[in-house]
Amino acid sequence: MNKEEYFINQFSNKKIIGDDGAFIDGFVYSMDAFFENVHFKKEWMNLKQIAYKSMIVNISDAIVMNAKPIYALLSVAIPKTYSEKDLIDLSKGFKKAAKEFGIEIIGGDTISNEKLDISVTIISKTSNPIYRNGVKKGDLLCYTGTLGLSKADLEKLLKNKEISKKSKFIKPVLNPDFFYEISPYITASMDISDGLFFELERLSKASNVGFEFFYNIDEEIGTSGEEYEILFSFNEKNLEKIKKIALKHKIKLNIFAKAIKGKYRTDCKNHHF
Amino acid sequence: MNKEEYFINQFSNKKIIGDDGAFIDGFVYSMDAFFENVHFKKEWMNLKQIAYKSMIVNISDAIVMNAKPIYALLSVAIPKTYSEKDLIDLSKGFKKAAKEFGIEIIGGDTISNEKLDISVTIISKTSNPIYRNGVKKGDLLCYTGTLGLSKADLEKLLKNKEISKKSKFIKPVLNPDFFYEISPYITASMDISDGLFFELERLSKASNVGFEFFYNIDEEIGTSGEEYEILFSFNEKNLEKIKKIALKHKIKLNIFAKAIKGKYRTDCKNHHF
Repeated sequence: MNKEEYFINQFSNKKIIGDDGAFIDGFVYSMDAFFENVHFKKEWMNLKQIAYKSMIVNISDAIVMNAKPIYALLSVAIPKTYSEKDLIDLSKGFKKAAKEFGIEIIGGDTISNEKLDISVTIISKTSNPIYRNGVKKGDLLCYTGTLGLSKADLEKLLKNKEISKKSKFIKPVLNPDFFYEISPYITASMDISDGLFFELERLSKASNVGFEFFYNIDEEIGTSGEEYEILFSFNEKNLEKIKKIALKHKIKLNIFAKAIKGKYRTDCKNHHF
Repeated sequence: MNKEEYFINQFSNKKIIGDDGAFIDGFVYSMDAFFENVHFKKEWMNLKQIAYKSMIVNISDAIVMNAKPIYALLSVAIPKTYSEKDLIDLSKGFKKAAKEFGIEIIGGDTISNEKLDISVTIISKTSNPIYRNGVKKGDLLCYTGTLGLSKADLEKLLKNKEISKKSKFIKPVLNPDFFYEISPYITASMDISDGLFFELERLSKASNVGFEFFYNIDEEIGTSGEEYEILFSFNEKNLEKIKKIALKHKIKLNIFAKAIKGKYRTDCKNHHF
């Protein structure tokens, strides 16, 4: 058990905390940290991109629970050295994400700090939350898009190499419309923030199932984090419906496994930079 | 305008952000940071006390808006050096505050970091929120308890001197029952986190009034922060009712000014450590 899990286990309602957000009475509450030298280095992105990404990784949590984000609170620790222009750039990033997803920034706190540390709380609404514990034996497992590029880009950054401004590592792309449309036809979902293999471990634990892979998935693909693609499960009878919706939204589907009796564990190491 | 105000002004709904929390549809949302070397030094308090105080300063925001805190989300950045016992101590502090105020910790995020940086989001319920903008000309201004000790204790800590374990600086004391009972009889309220004079500036700005002091308040009293006493205003006709409730809860009232036409500004400097 890692430190994070250990700490979380100190609180009673593990089930709720284990999901991307907590669903209570029609609302989903989620909160994620986005800290300098933990999640990003300031050389890697400009301030607008950093603020934008800090919002997007949180909004992603809401979407994969089938919730529509409505409000955000921001805790922003700002280096004393930042200029007024820096603050405007930061606020532009927050506002861009808020506007894109129809979110109102309703409050928060700003303080002076050694480095830029952001925590974002998102309040979302849903009448039909989707959890991690809904995978049924026989369900098909699918992830969207292409995995691997975020890890490759992170490795470039760690070697002080340049990456494309369009890299998902800098600007994750969420697909809320696709997700909301498939939501009636799926049984469980989560976003891929730490890497497919690690998310599958969580899904296995939450739903008490194992997975039979249809093909081998390379480590470079399975351990690529910060992808913000969607991992979901569904009953085979809904395959055609989901394929049709994916085609409409131009989303690539990768149906890679079937849920079986058992338990899934990966031997790969989950290494943050 | 300081950096914090400047940054906050980047967002549209200043009115909401200006209050201790944002009131929307029966809920109050508030979020505050509690960072090592910004709000505390680790030599000053043990981990349980730090976690407890990080909750209490947030719960205080909810109470002074006349809201009952129900849920909390925690973003906790934890030094890599912390042991399992350290994590248990931290969680004990969070749980102690949660239990005391009937709050359920529903989620959040934990990460590894250089220092202990906590952000807390509190979700509260109220049918009658009390704002900072409700002071009417002629209202009496009052604060609870005794001010000055937190500043004196902070100054001792900065000189590496010991302070009492019972110091409000280490363990702020909130008086929710007193506050909820006077709430029908008051016009505006906020907690004293930065110091009476600075809170009065905010109250003056929000309510568009000035203050006529009944007596001189020393700088040591008026600039003492982290007191978490309550500053509130009320119509003189409710004086006896409020006095009676204060007597019942053993709360000291300091009725120190009357709201008048004008604007209040302090010349004192708001210095954090």
